Amino acid sequence: MSKPILVLTTGGTIDKNYFDALSEYQITDSGIPALLGEARVALPFRVVELMRKDSLELTEADRLLVAAAAREAPESRIVITHGTDTMTETARVLAAEVPGKTIVLTGALSPARFAETDAPFNLGMAFATAQVAPPGVWIAMSGEVFDGLKVKKDRAAGKFVAI
Amino acid sequence: MSKPILVLTTGGTIDKNYFDALSEYQITDSGIPALLGEARVALPFRVVELMRKDSLELTEADRLLVAAAAREAPESRIVITHGTDTMTETARVLAAEVPGKTIVLTGALSPARFAETDAPFNLGMAFATAQVAPPGVWIAMSGEVFDGLKVKKDRAAGKFVAI
Amino acid sequence: MSKPILVLTTGGTIDKNYFDALSEYQITDSGIPALLGEARVALPFRVVELMRKDSLELTEADRLLVAAAAREAPESRIVITHGTDTMTETARVLAAEVPGKTIVLTGALSPARFAETDAPFNLGMAFATAQVAPPGVWIAMSGEVFDGLKVKKDRAAGKFVAI
Amino acid sequence: MSKPILVLTTGGTIDKNYFDALSEYQITDSGIPALLGEARVALPFRVVELMRKDSLELTEADRLLVAAAAREAPESRIVITHGTDTMTETARVLAAEVPGKTIVLTGALSPARFAETDAPFNLGMAFATAQVAPPGVWIAMSGEVFDGLKVKKDRAAGKFVAI
Repeated sequence: MSKPILVLTTGGTIDKNYFDALSEYQITDSGIPALLGEARVALPFRVVELMRKDSLELTEADRLLVAAAAREAPESRIVITHGTDTMTETARVLAAEVPGKTIVLTGALSPARFAETDAPFNLGMAFATAQVAPPGVWIAMSGEVFDGLKVKKDRAAGKFVAI
Repeated sequence: MSKPILVLTTGGTIDKNYFDALSEYQITDSGIPALLGEARVALPFRVVELMRKDSLELTEADRLLVAAAAREAPESRIVITHGTDTMTETARVLAAEVPGKTIVLTGALSPARFAETDAPFNLGMAFATAQVAPPGVWIAMSGEVFDGLKVKKDRAAGKFVAI
Repeated sequence: MSKPILVLTTGGTIDKNYFDALSEYQITDSGIPALLGEARVALPFRVVELMRKDSLELTEADRLLVAAAAREAPESRIVITHGTDTMTETARVLAAEVPGKTIVLTGALSPARFAETDAPFNLGMAFATAQVAPPGVWIAMSGEVFDGLKVKKDRAAGKFVAI
Repeated sequence: MSKPILVLTTGGTIDKNYFDALSEYQITDSGIPALLGEARVALPFRVVELMRKDSLELTEADRLLVAAAAREAPESRIVITHGTDTMTETARVLAAEVPGKTIVLTGALSPARFAETDAPFNLGMAFATAQVAPPGVWIAMSGEVFDGLKVKKDRAAGKFVAI
């Protein structure tokens, strides 16, 4: 039987929305469940919304909370949606704190609510990696699956690159 | 350095379009390159359009042509977009004809040109599987990565299931 | 107070959908209410689904039924979604059968369910014309509001033109 | 022959975009030409990008510039895309400064680049109103065509209402 996947959402560009009433743009209730429905995912999964933060606002305590949620969960295959700017920092905390599980971080450069967005493709990469890759921490961005400890975001180029 | 991916397109629902001038609906030039652009794929890849067929129309000769294209290509990681109805038959031909490569078949239940579609998620799953999975033939559909020889389409339920 | 609008749906490309289970493409439950919700229409309106037909399949009896529905309705401002191929024939029947109401026919060259579609723009034109234009039959297509008796579809060019 | 339409863009939510490199959200090059292409507008039109501002940032000098551009243009049918918060203030300046032309202000509560947006419907309403309505200043929002001097934005309710 297929092993279930846990999706932890933490915020980031992938879940940014725009509110006209405030004339501003905020992270909102996660669009991830809608994306998984549109993708017709039939594999068992559950989505837990942990926090709604820009990744630049994440503290060390936040990262430890994400790690604890991953470690304590019954699932051994975990997808985490996350802002891209500090995704690699969270990867390092997860690698130190959560042994023996396959954890995949992903996010988006363009919000999931946009007509043009990398969100569903990236989430698809993360779901497949969670099923296929061995235990460890992985980052699925820019069309590529990276070792989570050997990758950085090249902000100017707008992509993730191996280091 | 990242290993390049070859994408072979064969048609199927994922590439179906609608033409008002004909009041009908046909497979058209592949939308896969546009999807990969929208997904901001930075990994080296190339797309080869092999044929434009409903998978119910594919002949044994067509499947052998797909297999030959996969076998002869310099790339060892191959994604094939394909209609869903006979995807598993092509998987069997590929398993027999193309040793030593990681081949991932994917497609969509809703055309990529629709506002709501499983196409980008499925293509993301296929790209990740092509990078992470060992040599063999895989099918990435319904949110899951299946052994290409141990899966069938449950047409009534609208999903792929392991057998 | 704003005068309410009646929307009659008859089918056509605007409401075409694709069904993988059948590997075919059919007119389905109307997407018009969803479009009006997305457009945040606050004006009072009601949607009545009259039929689900390609306009090439519409009979004279069908056109008389559409006319009767428009004539008998309490609303005096009426939007009709319709296939494009025989939209002008229905316009002629409406002009003869329904005096004293502002009736606007519209449709789409690309289905409303597509990511790229003229459907919401056309429906917006029709809503505005129903509010602003004098009684008569109008066709709102190709970015233009036409006198419904002085327009034809140029099938090759994929647009409506005045005659 | 169809009378041509001038589209003046001034910014506002309709043209807001999100830039990951800045982790912020800005008005960008106008998406209006793309929307008109997707709508398959065959009527002659031209688009002039006047400014890129949130409507809360518009000054009296900005409004006079918009009015001057409308007054001096050869076209007598004008669509103006505009932020929603001060759309009615610009309507008043246009009513005082530009006699004898049909001017329609529109915008959006959700950016045009979003998958779900009122932008194409609103732009369709504005195009039809510019063709059908008598000279004057009109606001096309919330599914309704309003006299531009007898409408306000109800920010809490997220819609325009007649006054």
